[in-house]
Amino acid sequence: MGPAGLSAGPLPHRPGRIEPVSHSHPELNEPSPIPDGGLRIIPLGGLGEVGRNMTVFEHAGKILIVDCGVLFPEDSQPGVDLILPDFSYLEGRWDDVVGVVLTHGHEDHIGAVPYLLRHHREIPVIGSELTLAFIEAKLKEHRIKAVTRLVREGQQDSLGPFDLEFVAVNHSIPDALAVMIRTTAGSVLHTGDFKMDQLPLDGRITDLRAFARLGEEGVDLFLVDSTNAEVPGFTAPERDIGKVLSNVFAEAGGQIVVASFASHVHRVQQVLDAAHAHGRKVALVGRSMVRNMGIAKELGHLDVPEGTLIDVKHITDFPPEQTVLMATGSQGEPMAALSRIANKDHRVSVGPGDTVIFASSLIPGNENSVFRVINGLMRLGAKVVHQGNAKVHVSGHASAGELLYCYNIVRPKNVMPVHGEIRHLVANGALAVQTGVPAERVVLAEDGVVVDLLEGKARIAGAVPAGYVYVDGSSVGEITDAELKDRRILGEEGFIAIFAAVDATNGTVLTGPHIQARGMAEDDAVFDAILPDVTDALNEVVARGNADTHQMQQAMRRVVGRWAARKLRRSPMIIPTVVEA
Amino acid sequence: MGPAGLSAGPLPHRPGRIEPVSHSHPELNEPSPIPDGGLRIIPLGGLGEVGRNMTVFEHAGKILIVDCGVLFPEDSQPGVDLILPDFSYLEGRWDDVVGVVLTHGHEDHIGAVPYLLRHHREIPVIGSELTLAFIEAKLKEHRIKAVTRLVREGQQDSLGPFDLEFVAVNHSIPDALAVMIRTTAGSVLHTGDFKMDQLPLDGRITDLRAFARLGEEGVDLFLVDSTNAEVPGFTAPERDIGKVLSNVFAEAGGQIVVASFASHVHRVQQVLDAAHAHGRKVALVGRSMVRNMGIAKELGHLDVPEGTLIDVKHITDFPPEQTVLMATGSQGEPMAALSRIANKDHRVSVGPGDTVIFASSLIPGNENSVFRVINGLMRLGAKVVHQGNAKVHVSGHASAGELLYCYNIVRPKNVMPVHGEIRHLVANGALAVQTGVPAERVVLAEDGVVVDLLEGKARIAGAVPAGYVYVDGSSVGEITDAELKDRRILGEEGFIAIFAAVDATNGTVLTGPHIQARGMAEDDAVFDAILPDVTDALNEVVARGNADTHQMQQAMRRVVGRWAARKLRRSPMIIPTVVEA
Repeated sequence: MGPAGLSAGPLPHRPGRIEPVSHSHPELNEPSPIPDGGLRIIPLGGLGEVGRNMTVFEHAGKILIVDCGVLFPEDSQPGVDLILPDFSYLEGRWDDVVGVVLTHGHEDHIGAVPYLLRHHREIPVIGSELTLAFIEAKLKEHRIKAVTRLVREGQQDSLGPFDLEFVAVNHSIPDALAVMIRTTAGSVLHTGDFKMDQLPLDGRITDLRAFARLGEEGVDLFLVDSTNAEVPGFTAPERDIGKVLSNVFAEAGGQIVVASFASHVHRVQQVLDAAHAHGRKVALVGRSMVRNMGIAKELGHLDVPEGTLIDVKHITDFPPEQTVLMATGSQGEPMAALSRIANKDHRVSVGPGDTVIFASSLIPGNENSVFRVINGLMRLGAKVVHQGNAKVHVSGHASAGELLYCYNIVRPKNVMPVHGEIRHLVANGALAVQTGVPAERVVLAEDGVVVDLLEGKARIAGAVPAGYVYVDGSSVGEITDAELKDRRILGEEGFIAIFAAVDATNGTVLTGPHIQARGMAEDDAVFDAILPDVTDALNEVVARGNADTHQMQQAMRRVVGRWAARKLRRSPMIIPTVVEA
Repeated sequence: MGPAGLSAGPLPHRPGRIEPVSHSHPELNEPSPIPDGGLRIIPLGGLGEVGRNMTVFEHAGKILIVDCGVLFPEDSQPGVDLILPDFSYLEGRWDDVVGVVLTHGHEDHIGAVPYLLRHHREIPVIGSELTLAFIEAKLKEHRIKAVTRLVREGQQDSLGPFDLEFVAVNHSIPDALAVMIRTTAGSVLHTGDFKMDQLPLDGRITDLRAFARLGEEGVDLFLVDSTNAEVPGFTAPERDIGKVLSNVFAEAGGQIVVASFASHVHRVQQVLDAAHAHGRKVALVGRSMVRNMGIAKELGHLDVPEGTLIDVKHITDFPPEQTVLMATGSQGEPMAALSRIANKDHRVSVGPGDTVIFASSLIPGNENSVFRVINGLMRLGAKVVHQGNAKVHVSGHASAGELLYCYNIVRPKNVMPVHGEIRHLVANGALAVQTGVPAERVVLAEDGVVVDLLEGKARIAGAVPAGYVYVDGSSVGEITDAELKDRRILGEEGFIAIFAAVDATNGTVLTGPHIQARGMAEDDAVFDAILPDVTDALNEVVARGNADTHQMQQAMRRVVGRWAARKLRRSPMIIPTVVEA
């Protein structure tokens, strides 16, 4: 998948302009070896997309990985379960990998670790207490026991030629870390996902004093979360939601259902607090919600008011006006509790007088699913509170205003926006330039673009494969874009399979043509109309002499294809099979 | 599709509450005949969805239709071209239809007219000059010559027992009308789509003096556009966009591309004006854009500054900084000019220094497609201006604040929100109640719910079929939800077809089993592994004696299904065929 056949060498920067560099840029080639004393940075995921974040750092023959997450498929990737980063750059290098640092416990940062460890189980997994607890729970499901290494903010650690320092950052999951990577080639500060809530629930703010100190020391390359770079101003404090929840709880007469993300400990905390204040019991619904909150509680990140949390099976022991269901499914996932409640396909029923709160974002692409659930709940008579009509969600990422603070505090020599689509990376790069970082020192790279840090300058040095690796059922990396294209054709157009068995000696049709079609018409008889023409076409091929089964198949394909185009105005997949018997 | 088997009769209203009534409500039955002197209102589309707007009015044995639009399919309806209202209520009644009134020329209000006229070509089509010009252009493509009847605001007309009066309303297409329908059973005011821009480009405001006069006269039932009922405040004037466009044009150095809707005459007008002011030529791109603007210009709705409009084939005669391309594709449609430009698959190329403006809304569900195009354009180095970072779009629908004015001016006896999903209808109904309409006089009906107006009261009287009618290739109404389910399975899981021919006398396998599979693995050899087991299963059935081909097929399905679940962890569609030869 890497570009090939072009001369190697760094890509020239145009002074004064920041320009995105795609992995498929025609001037990019497989990179030359790392220059002596250089540090190579290769984003294998998360640059040009929201998800599967993974960055490879290579220096003095050793490799350090920061994050290893999954990307969730779009509708154009039907049937796919997960999308992983392409690990092929690491093939043959597994023994050189000194560790994988996980900045926090979200799926788009840890979800691909089990697949990474399948290649090499000995890679140490480094992270904070909560992050390790989440990845260990996940690895247990994959029956993998990993080598882990617990770190805390303020702590330093060495992995081969990489000296690491961890810095507390605030995000929509507790215990998130930024990481400073010091090498003889220079220092890189990677924010991970972060925002700068100045009054977080747990008092654990993004450590700007550390950012300032590291800036003073010198940050040669700053990798910065771009997710909200397009959003002007400042992300509101998580704490603001508490008051809104309390008001909604105060007005609610019947049952309350709150939907949010299964790892959003502080959001759940605020629901617990609001419930406690209004004399309601809370039951957690959804396997991941129950598991994650169990971990968070055990590690002291979730403070459950005495007697507030009950098991969902006891929810009916209390009148509806004394209960809250805290559920997953805020993105309209069809199998999650909330969708099933909206479809009257769940033991929890919602009706007039009940209130459902979507304490969550609406992730782009999920609009139809989410509104389908909202409409379903409103059809049942429930009141629905969501981001669109009340402040029941704040983002976990720093907005443009916060990013400006960061750039001004750190004053990095080079900047490489990470975590986001092109539009986010471009917006983030523009913020860096506004604070005085020279445009030619802002690297807008996409996945697979190789960046070398040498003598205080980050330069694009080539590209390596960084395509999608699909997890599909039990297969990893076996499904290709060709199969997905087949699926899209099948899904939009259906198929017609035609089978015939012919006499091996003279090509006479022994049985068939038989037609099987799906996805086009309810009545199979529609397709009977074409059988005589297919038979004629077969006989014609035979009459020409020297016919082989391939020619017969092509003849069948032509006849059926033309008929479908003319008669049905469709282009189904056509699968002709002729066998000799 | 209609509910059945339950006792007929009106549904009781709960005083003080407005509750949505679904077509599938268990207490709803086929309606009794219209009570003497009553007016029956049946929404066949647009209530519970955004699109395929169509309302049937029935009185004194005659039927009047208001609007007849299409709905565009979602991803969960793969391959479908269009969705029509279900006309089956009108079957056998075509001679009673006195006319179809079109409130304006948008597809979701006129797109199904060709399919309606296929049933009965003599139905008069009534509308304003621009609306008729748009529908006539569409009918020409369908090779239909309709009976049309031109009306203007302020004008009255009679169609059978229906006395009509047309009222000017302002919308995102010129020449839109509301319609007052007077019958001996009472009067209905139907807003169509509207907003209340007080300074529209063409000076044609929503005629609130007429609304006031009709209110004084008495509006028994008010059908009100719900699209923006959830949006607080007031929709900004279209005119505001002109200044923003002019600023963007002033800053733009290279080529400018503006994307918008193909029928948004006033938006195109403002692009023409901004181009003229900044010395640029405009070329229209996209068949529908060229056609619609030709019509609008001819009818005096588009005022082209001398020498500003050029044919797209002359665009290269001018330097980029003197041109504007006005294109369709603002929703990320993959075949539209804009997507192709972003993919470098169009003769117009965009690069660093160029500006692309999305002067359009982002219709929910299109986010992924639109952001894909935006990212593509930014990857090419273009500056992208859109609703999210500049005020380059305003809605065509009245927001909550405007709706409150309407209710207070009209003071209707009964209200029936139209045009929207449940969440929009509920929000609109709540606004009516806030202005003093009693909750039990607000009818929140979905498609197919029958409402009778009698003695000044609107009551739900039953339900009629109102399901989706799919246009799919050349077929209309032949594809059912079963085929769509097949398509979804095929698209997500792929299929395995297995074929065998057996001896009719003893069941011995003559040829096969042969496997064809798509959408699961690149390498067909994967499936060879299962062939011996399928053969064993066939032989086992034969060995039991009295085997028929159905039993053999079931045996093959079981073996292959289990194998796919266990080995691939997938549930493909399995299509076994056994024929006797």
